[in-house]
Amino acid sequence: MPPPARPLEPRSARASRLNTVNASTALLTDRYELTMLQATLRDGTAQRRSVFELFARRLPEGRRYGVVAGVGRLLDALAEFRFGQVELDWLREAGVVDEDTIQWLADYRFSGTIWGYPDGELYFPQSPVLIVEGTFAESVILETVFLSILNHDSAIASAATRMITAAGNRPCIEMGSRRTHEGSAVAAARSAYIAGFAATSNLEAGRTYGIPTTGTSAHSFTLLHDTERDAFEAQVRALGPGTTLLVDTYDIPEAIRTAVEVAGPELGGVRLDSGDLVALAGEVRRQLDDLGATSTRITVTSDLDEYAIAALAAAPVDGYGVGTALVTGSGAPTSGFVYKLVSREGTGGEMVPVAKKSKDKVSVGGRKSALRRRDAAGTAQAEVIGIDLTPVHDGDDRTLLVELVRDGSRVHHETLDDARERLRTSLAELPATSRQLQAGEPAIDTVYEERT
Amino acid sequence: MPPPARPLEPRSARASRLNTVNASTALLTDRYELTMLQATLRDGTAQRRSVFELFARRLPEGRRYGVVAGVGRLLDALAEFRFGQVELDWLREAGVVDEDTIQWLADYRFSGTIWGYPDGELYFPQSPVLIVEGTFAESVILETVFLSILNHDSAIASAATRMITAAGNRPCIEMGSRRTHEGSAVAAARSAYIAGFAATSNLEAGRTYGIPTTGTSAHSFTLLHDTERDAFEAQVRALGPGTTLLVDTYDIPEAIRTAVEVAGPELGGVRLDSGDLVALAGEVRRQLDDLGATSTRITVTSDLDEYAIAALAAAPVDGYGVGTALVTGSGAPTSGFVYKLVSREGTGGEMVPVAKKSKDKVSVGGRKSALRRRDAAGTAQAEVIGIDLTPVHDGDDRTLLVELVRDGSRVHHETLDDARERLRTSLAELPATSRQLQAGEPAIDTVYEERT
Repeated sequence: MPPPARPLEPRSARASRLNTVNASTALLTDRYELTMLQATLRDGTAQRRSVFELFARRLPEGRRYGVVAGVGRLLDALAEFRFGQVELDWLREAGVVDEDTIQWLADYRFSGTIWGYPDGELYFPQSPVLIVEGTFAESVILETVFLSILNHDSAIASAATRMITAAGNRPCIEMGSRRTHEGSAVAAARSAYIAGFAATSNLEAGRTYGIPTTGTSAHSFTLLHDTERDAFEAQVRALGPGTTLLVDTYDIPEAIRTAVEVAGPELGGVRLDSGDLVALAGEVRRQLDDLGATSTRITVTSDLDEYAIAALAAAPVDGYGVGTALVTGSGAPTSGFVYKLVSREGTGGEMVPVAKKSKDKVSVGGRKSALRRRDAAGTAQAEVIGIDLTPVHDGDDRTLLVELVRDGSRVHHETLDDARERLRTSLAELPATSRQLQAGEPAIDTVYEERT
Repeated sequence: MPPPARPLEPRSARASRLNTVNASTALLTDRYELTMLQATLRDGTAQRRSVFELFARRLPEGRRYGVVAGVGRLLDALAEFRFGQVELDWLREAGVVDEDTIQWLADYRFSGTIWGYPDGELYFPQSPVLIVEGTFAESVILETVFLSILNHDSAIASAATRMITAAGNRPCIEMGSRRTHEGSAVAAARSAYIAGFAATSNLEAGRTYGIPTTGTSAHSFTLLHDTERDAFEAQVRALGPGTTLLVDTYDIPEAIRTAVEVAGPELGGVRLDSGDLVALAGEVRRQLDDLGATSTRITVTSDLDEYAIAALAAAPVDGYGVGTALVTGSGAPTSGFVYKLVSREGTGGEMVPVAKKSKDKVSVGGRKSALRRRDAAGTAQAEVIGIDLTPVHDGDDRTLLVELVRDGSRVHHETLDDARERLRTSLAELPATSRQLQAGEPAIDTVYEERT
């Protein structure tokens, strides 16, 4: 596989370009948010100060931790959450809300404050991943777009992190674009990069986020040519002997012989996309070595997930290309985040914790704080959530919430490499066994602290 | 639940607005497509006439049929597949391909012909869902964006159709936006509508595709108010007594009493979002009837999938709101479509069928035709695929491929209601048992016809 398209460099927090053509994200919203807005504008509760919390009741079955991703995209989406003429005209034409509500939306700017777990942080059941403080009106209408972004991006990052862990020091390449919605594909590449993937096949992800792009070639390229040799010669002529040749279109041993004849022993790599990869990798390695191509790398693809990657640990494989399992969250395509009102202004101006009592879906009222309790060795012990108080920090602990938006202005700007580094550090804090693939309980317990 | 925002009306084939800001879809592409292009431009094979086929090797485990969706979006994406200055500059800056290739891309317009199964058609293993005929160069670079769209949209439509079947005559509402990527959410609403869903919660889907939008209210709305009664009064005042009240924030029987007191017996509906819905629906129905609210409808939500919907068949439920299971394809989040070269021009100008021999991934060479064999009663018997020939049509059969693009121009324009109707008809052709939810083999066999 060729080196990444461009060297790793600090990533700027660029505005996501994968939005609607008119750039507004305001209609990526469920209708009920606007009708609730209308009702509260009429009865005066719209202006009550409110605290919304975004959290997951549980992790997907068997998962030991979750990985936050999408915060940067969420902040981009907030900046574009504006009701312009196109949106307002449509709301009026479709009769979604009344004229007073439309006028209110025309002036909409979020003026509140948002705290959150940043990209690359781990989360556990009930972790207050996002806390939105503002009026009810300005906060409630952000529910859908915030959930969409974090539910998707964190699901991909969580699966991707398990793959990276299984791969050890071998690089993983994200190549799942074709298996998911074309917009999700770009976001999935971003999540995979945060998790530690080396590169993506997706060009738009390269352009939008500066993620290195890479690729080999398809079976169609070999089939287009009259012979496999013609195809290899064309590829080497165009891309140099450092390229990666796909060797399983016809007969693999013959393809390897041809590949080394064409590119010489400095052939960059070969890709295997079918068959029993464990056995095959060993055979291909021996053949390459016998032909003097001792530094030619072996990349495997073909429906890999974290378990298949782990099963290849002892095989002489140099890199993994991962597609379907990555972009579908490897069995957990969404994160289960919800967005709940946990506190709001009462009639006397005081803040009142609130919680629903729905069966099996009880929520915990009150404004939360959070820290990761660590022992003196730096190993995580518990997720400590303070209810309307800040948990006592004992020196070894780590505060989890960072300020993202203050009084309507974005104050959090990070590169994707910052998020990558945070994830590496956060993972290293976990008890070692909980970084393995085996199903189990969350790696650490969630503990509440509240006033007595 | 209130009536849809606007009456069903013929849907125009509007351009999707959920693209990149500069509207180009050209970089929703894997890097290897452009490097293969470069290699073939150099050795002259780029101009070889080629036939690519998009198909699924198999259906997801246990599924009896698949539903095609995304064709309209694919044609929109093709129209926007243009390399403008932004794309070309980035490709140059990132060193993806050489200057000759960049010049070729600057002039890119697809000039070939595309045939396909239209939106709402059923498909089976090996069905030639899309056939792209053009030069290798102009066809190979469409691989990723075509696969992304059809893999996603068809996965959602396939799951949605099972839900519609399970729901019988009761309406289903799509409300899964928050559980999936914000762009996927809009496409998922489109797929669900094709499958027969009555409406969506997603406003952008309303604007882009004219799908009816609807909604109720959230628990946060009740919690915002000092009492549940205050919340119900505010909602009824703003939206009228025909609105749907959410009654499970605190105590359900008390909420029902309050709801009918506030709205009167003409209360439009109540929504249940938690608990044992089968038992609960019966209790709520009895209570509503006792209070004289005999026409008040009961809508249930809470993590429904096709099995949960089926289990509610005997309960007095009037409608289903479906979220997570729908937008994640109910266990099958992607369709497994691949895009393979099946025929290409040889040195003498003749077309040569081609197929790879990779273990477990053998493909079938040759340009395909397809028809659904039906008996005299109109029941589907087999999916007949002709290889380099048109299968004999016996009068009861139905031709499946329609021309979508001819010599680069789009010739297929349909409304979503056309697709809805096609799906209804196609489903009705299946043997009755294969429309049920039980896992099984594909409803009909796939049969090849080829020259002897």
